[in-house]
Amino acid sequence: MMNKVHARGRRGRRPGRPETRAQVLDVARRRFLAEGYQVVTMRSIAAEAGVDAALVSYFFGSKRGLFGAVLALTANPPELLRAALPGDPASLPERVLGALLGAWDDPRQSGPLRVLVTAAVQDPELARLLTDAFEHEMVDRVADHIGGPHARYRAGAFVAQLAGLVFTRYVLRLEPLASMTADEITRHLAPGLRAALHGPRPVPQLVRA
Amino acid sequence: MMNKVHARGRRGRRPGRPETRAQVLDVARRRFLAEGYQVVTMRSIAAEAGVDAALVSYFFGSKRGLFGAVLALTANPPELLRAALPGDPASLPERVLGALLGAWDDPRQSGPLRVLVTAAVQDPELARLLTDAFEHEMVDRVADHIGGPHARYRAGAFVAQLAGLVFTRYVLRLEPLASMTADEITRHLAPGLRAALHGPRPVPQLVRA
Repeated sequence: MMNKVHARGRRGRRPGRPETRAQVLDVARRRFLAEGYQVVTMRSIAAEAGVDAALVSYFFGSKRGLFGAVLALTANPPELLRAALPGDPASLPERVLGALLGAWDDPRQSGPLRVLVTAAVQDPELARLLTDAFEHEMVDRVADHIGGPHARYRAGAFVAQLAGLVFTRYVLRLEPLASMTADEITRHLAPGLRAALHGPRPVPQLVRA
Repeated sequence: MMNKVHARGRRGRRPGRPETRAQVLDVARRRFLAEGYQVVTMRSIAAEAGVDAALVSYFFGSKRGLFGAVLALTANPPELLRAALPGDPASLPERVLGALLGAWDDPRQSGPLRVLVTAAVQDPELARLLTDAFEHEMVDRVADHIGGPHARYRAGAFVAQLAGLVFTRYVLRLEPLASMTADEITRHLAPGLRAALHGPRPVPQLVRA
């Protein structure tokens, strides 16, 4: 996508080289984290990076595209999930929780995650894009991985629980979730995730006590 | 809180009667739902309700207070949870899911719920108030209800799963969660909630396949 030729050899505000792209991303990342998705403008990022606003558009297409590029630099949910899928099915919940907690308990990662969720809640179009990505890269991927009857519903229940963890521990910072250690979270949340993957048992009517 | 006396008998823009309060709430509800928490001002609500802005402040204290009063009219999470707690412990997950789905699958209720979550994500101070309320009225209440070892962690895991359901089904509208029937949701999510309430079993090391 990057055309390095047209800008080569120029000096000043419009170099268009990979370093410029990285520099814009760096500024964008800092600004999105500090001010949130809605407030920041492409123009102000360009100004702070010392490049033309048109160059930022040329690199990233839109603010949404720039935001996506910033997020791609951070530990993002589908990426972490994909890496945790292979292995013993019996310990899949522990692996996924380990990967997510390992990444997001680091404040450098939980910051972007919070910004992502906030932006998605504020901007319906961005929410739609993210939801599409989560459906295909999380729910469908888990469903393919586990297979069996109602795989997509079981995967959906699994992903909903992960979303609940993200929302309570990192976004709302709801106690006790926010302060539990990674081990405590894993011990208390893995059983629910395992139950979701297993799916409903054909239980006889619940016996009343 | 309402002083009906001082406004009695007056005509025009400052009646200060219960009907006025209800009318302000009605306007506020419609405006918050249509435009979200951040955009709407007390002044514009007062103007549309045909009352003085000072009267709105007098009734509700602040925009946050007005928003709280609007939400109190709708099916709110702690209320629903409280009503679902009593009964057979074995079917508690089904009861809670039944209550939440019964309320929020109605679009008149899921609208306010979405506005609530959006507002909480946008306004850190509101988020703190809501998080406090959820801790005391949901996590602590479930913990008291179930008792036993690590009751607060088990209650936290339970509430995190409910938050995940709300966030995926009603806010993000993530599939398949968004389109599953209430029965399908209950069948696939109750086992995870039950596992959370039960808490971690003292499992021997997982046997590798």
